[in-house]
Amino acid sequence: LSFTERLNKLQQDKNSVLCVGLDPSISKLPLHFDRSNPIESVGRFCSEIIESTLPHCSAFKPNLAFFEALGPEGLGLLKELRQQIGNRALVIADGKRGDIGNTAAMYASSFFDVFDFDACTVSAYMGKDSVTPFLEYTDKLVFVLVKTSNAGAADFQDLEVNGVSLYRIVAEKLEKWQEDGPGGEVGFVVGATQGDTLKELRIAHPNVHFLVPGIGAQGGSIDLTMEVHTERGKVVVNSSRSIIYASSDEDFASAAGKAAENLAFSLEKK
Amino acid sequence: LSFTERLNKLQQDKNSVLCVGLDPSISKLPLHFDRSNPIESVGRFCSEIIESTLPHCSAFKPNLAFFEALGPEGLGLLKELRQQIGNRALVIADGKRGDIGNTAAMYASSFFDVFDFDACTVSAYMGKDSVTPFLEYTDKLVFVLVKTSNAGAADFQDLEVNGVSLYRIVAEKLEKWQEDGPGGEVGFVVGATQGDTLKELRIAHPNVHFLVPGIGAQGGSIDLTMEVHTERGKVVVNSSRSIIYASSDEDFASAAGKAAENLAFSLEKK
Repeated sequence: LSFTERLNKLQQDKNSVLCVGLDPSISKLPLHFDRSNPIESVGRFCSEIIESTLPHCSAFKPNLAFFEALGPEGLGLLKELRQQIGNRALVIADGKRGDIGNTAAMYASSFFDVFDFDACTVSAYMGKDSVTPFLEYTDKLVFVLVKTSNAGAADFQDLEVNGVSLYRIVAEKLEKWQEDGPGGEVGFVVGATQGDTLKELRIAHPNVHFLVPGIGAQGGSIDLTMEVHTERGKVVVNSSRSIIYASSDEDFASAAGKAAENLAFSLEKK
Repeated sequence: LSFTERLNKLQQDKNSVLCVGLDPSISKLPLHFDRSNPIESVGRFCSEIIESTLPHCSAFKPNLAFFEALGPEGLGLLKELRQQIGNRALVIADGKRGDIGNTAAMYASSFFDVFDFDACTVSAYMGKDSVTPFLEYTDKLVFVLVKTSNAGAADFQDLEVNGVSLYRIVAEKLEKWQEDGPGGEVGFVVGATQGDTLKELRIAHPNVHFLVPGIGAQGGSIDLTMEVHTERGKVVVNSSRSIIYASSDEDFASAAGKAAENLAFSLEKK
């Protein structure tokens, strides 16, 4: 099954387009966790969050920076968490890599062969050969940065080239590279904080999967996000901090589950 | 000492602006290495390459993709290699990360606190908040992608915004962010395969450190590269494959040392 087919099935079964972002910071764990043992504590925290939110989300998005900041053991922990999830949800590795062809092929191998992630995020500043090696994996998907959710997004992504925004040019090239490519799927990262842009890109690229971060702590609008998505199967809406840190007490896992359930419900088509 | 001060001293002591890129691929190791034990083999390969090339290079640039492709243990190995190098050369982590502020801060912590690298590479597609967290480390340097050495570099980096190339705009913003920043240094990644561009950027930004990849396997010109660099302290010239794979026999380490020595000599000011 392709990424799209697997995601469609999970989204239908769970009635949820929600993706839970795993950005575990030792300083933000509930207070009863032992901060002197980061790997064990972050592992138990994530493991419980995963089980409590699994019924309400079709995907998880581990943010690699937070695992790498724990040192090499953090990556070992990430591998265990990926195995824990199994095929109960898809797993999107959020690492935003982007490098020349032979290096991109190594990142693809790391994400898809070693860790068995279902998708990953990539930055396309280096152009075509930084993206196409990921498309060799025909049952995977690569989400490429198009218009991001942060303040800095305006610095370069909004620059106009002959009247067309850079992010529009990136989006067009990406769809073309997918068409010309060996079979893997391309998706776009488009922030929920970018209301009009989201709509504009959705209309221009109706068949492309969107990974939409920025709901929750970053202030993105749920209504705007869902308004522009007519097919549930073509969007994955991510929230990290507002779910995993829903409570800083011992009820953190059930609070995260409840937050995920509520957000998944809000994201259902109106 | 700042990154620049440490690099200047090493470059003077060794009479070398060379950086040896560590891109160890199990399939390319000399034939006598045991391919069924990748961590041990890659570890011994890199360790011997480091010792043989150390007298002739002022920096090493491990390419994170190649270590990540070995799984979590690959990162453990990278940490050991970084400790092996110590302060005998600077170590530039080539990971080309680029993410929103709170995530960029985690990458910076991973590279500078956990691994104690001297510098890292970053992609600036996401704008200012993807770069500035690295500048909090005032004794470190962040090399940001400006004009890369690969074929895909032309796809977006050469696009013109009101008659100015995107890479020029990126370069100008970066220098400004450094000036406004908390004290860390910014450098530019500019490919050796981009002759005229290298010269244009060097003239426009005389005080910025350039990390120049693309010499060797990628076909960049040594003469062009050095012609545009008048101050030895402001350039780091990387070569990976042409050095570490100089021989596929048991003499691989001494061959790498000889290749590094020859290249360092070629790179000396004429």
